[in-house]
Amino acid sequence: MLICDGMADRPIVKLGNRTPLEAARTPNMDKLAKRGICGLMDTIAPGVPPGSDTAHLALLGYDPFEVYTGRGPFEAAGAGIELNPGDIAFRANYATVDDALLVKDRRAERVQGTKPLEAAVGQIKLRGADFIFKNTVGHRATLVLRGRGLSHEVTDSDPHEIGKKVLRVRPLLQAPERPGLIQAILTGGIRRFVGRRRRAAKTARLLNDFSRRAHEILKDHGFNVERVKKGLPPANYLLLRGGGVVPHLQPLQARFGIRGACVAAAALVKGVCRMAGMNAIDVPSATGSVNTDLSAKVMAALKALETNELVLLHIKGFDEASHDGNAAAKVKLIERVDGALKPLIKAADFIVLAIDHTTPVTVREHTSDPVPVVIAGPGVRADDVHAYGERAAAKGGLCRIRGKDLLPILSDLMGKSKKFGA
Amino acid sequence: MLICDGMADRPIVKLGNRTPLEAARTPNMDKLAKRGICGLMDTIAPGVPPGSDTAHLALLGYDPFEVYTGRGPFEAAGAGIELNPGDIAFRANYATVDDALLVKDRRAERVQGTKPLEAAVGQIKLRGADFIFKNTVGHRATLVLRGRGLSHEVTDSDPHEIGKKVLRVRPLLQAPERPGLIQAILTGGIRRFVGRRRRAAKTARLLNDFSRRAHEILKDHGFNVERVKKGLPPANYLLLRGGGVVPHLQPLQARFGIRGACVAAAALVKGVCRMAGMNAIDVPSATGSVNTDLSAKVMAALKALETNELVLLHIKGFDEASHDGNAAAKVKLIERVDGALKPLIKAADFIVLAIDHTTPVTVREHTSDPVPVVIAGPGVRADDVHAYGERAAAKGGLCRIRGKDLLPILSDLMGKSKKFGA
Repeated sequence: MLICDGMADRPIVKLGNRTPLEAARTPNMDKLAKRGICGLMDTIAPGVPPGSDTAHLALLGYDPFEVYTGRGPFEAAGAGIELNPGDIAFRANYATVDDALLVKDRRAERVQGTKPLEAAVGQIKLRGADFIFKNTVGHRATLVLRGRGLSHEVTDSDPHEIGKKVLRVRPLLQAPERPGLIQAILTGGIRRFVGRRRRAAKTARLLNDFSRRAHEILKDHGFNVERVKKGLPPANYLLLRGGGVVPHLQPLQARFGIRGACVAAAALVKGVCRMAGMNAIDVPSATGSVNTDLSAKVMAALKALETNELVLLHIKGFDEASHDGNAAAKVKLIERVDGALKPLIKAADFIVLAIDHTTPVTVREHTSDPVPVVIAGPGVRADDVHAYGERAAAKGGLCRIRGKDLLPILSDLMGKSKKFGA
Repeated sequence: MLICDGMADRPIVKLGNRTPLEAARTPNMDKLAKRGICGLMDTIAPGVPPGSDTAHLALLGYDPFEVYTGRGPFEAAGAGIELNPGDIAFRANYATVDDALLVKDRRAERVQGTKPLEAAVGQIKLRGADFIFKNTVGHRATLVLRGRGLSHEVTDSDPHEIGKKVLRVRPLLQAPERPGLIQAILTGGIRRFVGRRRRAAKTARLLNDFSRRAHEILKDHGFNVERVKKGLPPANYLLLRGGGVVPHLQPLQARFGIRGACVAAAALVKGVCRMAGMNAIDVPSATGSVNTDLSAKVMAALKALETNELVLLHIKGFDEASHDGNAAAKVKLIERVDGALKPLIKAADFIVLAIDHTTPVTVREHTSDPVPVVIAGPGVRADDVHAYGERAAAKGGLCRIRGKDLLPILSDLMGKSKKFGA
């Protein structure tokens, strides 16, 4: 399963009203489209721009509307923390604040080498919950709360803007409005509301205590004293955001009888795959250029195919080109990726080529435009689509499907699905 | 957003097995199809023939299965009554009954000038609820009940047939059958059922009292004494039907950040738009022929575009031609409308051309056949469909969508949607 992050686009005038995918020379992807069945896919739902995490949840057969409450759990799983359903997890940033707690830099100038800070913050103990804190890459980290009576329904401490003061974490819940209120009282909803609110208030208090303790530890830490000496902004605050509760996801193995692995550099994607019970394969060498990164990842995916029934290969770069608004760079990258995929297309029994979301270079953000998808392999009802592109796929035999239907379709083609009924 | 009421159809032998839309000359709609993305749309769901109210709820992004319980609330909103969520509303007809309460004429020969009757009925006060009564057009009126412990789960008083006696309003609820009963007892459903039943019984009693009081007032009213003298059937009874509870609809402005207005003559359509937080623009001059009606409405829509981000223009007439079974008239009307739309198509940034439901001239009723839809505007993945028609649209790049997905798709193209996930 090849997922090209943000490769889909909209027609661009400079490209002769073609999309980058339509404009690029992609003989391998086109060959795949020719021997497979094509279609359009709303990764989440029509009109809903997907995030990376929600998109991959859907691509692995889960309903993001049911299981997703925030990015935190997937960051934490991506960082390799063993999570339990019910844990509350947050994305954290090492940031720079001044004495008045005004944010000077949300990433402490993309601080590196924060291992000593991780160890110091990891010592924090507070009554009411266990805290698990772990660095990921650079200024990024993740915080997990484990215990009874906790909630993800709290606000961020990250003001998301430079110059603003760090925010107190607060319970997110509002009492139902008047019409709903009467109904809520009648149906016992108020008692549930009060319980939720109490858990959220406890969690907010814990997070505020944690933030204060972390700030005290960080601001006086030798690592930061050293940075200040060098004229660098100290990593003296942990900004929290994206709180979510760890859902119970039935693993792929239990659901489809499929042993799966993923090859992905993005922590969020890795996190989703891990929570789906897949083995996330690290490709440490793949941090260089797009080219070396890709061939190392393709090699890793080929190797993973020897011991797994499903390998998800997440290919980055398109999304970055789109965020930069660079159509020409996107076309070039698509052509390079097309060549790199050839060995994988040859090796796998079934191939799914898909995209997690559209990122138009004209918009520079994820949009909801459906993405082209092709499934190739034995028994597939190959259609007469001969090119892999947004508009070509619309004429394919899959018509228009949802992201969460993709894996069940593939699983049945692989002979792994069970009949519903007699 | 141009909504052509009932314009879609089925192939007609007399038209050479074409639909009226396929047979008509429609250069402007075709040009729009050419520069836009086309598809089929199940306004509600495959196989479900939509009403005007449910269709427009879906077209504005709501799920009619969730929010719709009857036409009453939308009639009342269309009549300009300020509603609260939880109000119970009914459509009412001034009708003629004899002394034995047998219905002689369900519309009192399409009685006009009932303002004095409205005032008299408006005086009715009963303990247990507030009554709001308002005339709309001709024999049509609307009744709203406001108070605690009311329900929409009651039967109509309208027997829907001439010669039958007016019906007592009754609670609509049946006790759950035996297998369900045990489950209901276990889950507390019985207590809820008893509560619902009690509210429905109270509402039925109030409506029966209201109907009797209204009949007493109407039958002796000078307006009707005068009518009887002239040999006209008196408007001496109010037949109630279509009871529904006013839902809480999140306004378009809150949901999508879109300021919207509608230009529509149909009260039900106006009502839906008002309840969605849109400004319903009255076009008082537009009561003449289809032609003057349409140009006045197009002018009003153009004006509304100056101060609104979304303008819904509802175009009537096709549905009437279909109900009359007149294919030739329908073709002619389509051609006239095609010309009238030209200035709007030029003025708007994004254009959606759609139909609320199919009304085949061979069936003379709404059917569930999906309708053609086109979205045109900057960034749209224009397809190779070159005509606006039922079968041409089936080959378009949207494939087959649901009515409730249309506004989210449009909103994202307008750059108004928020990413779900990180």
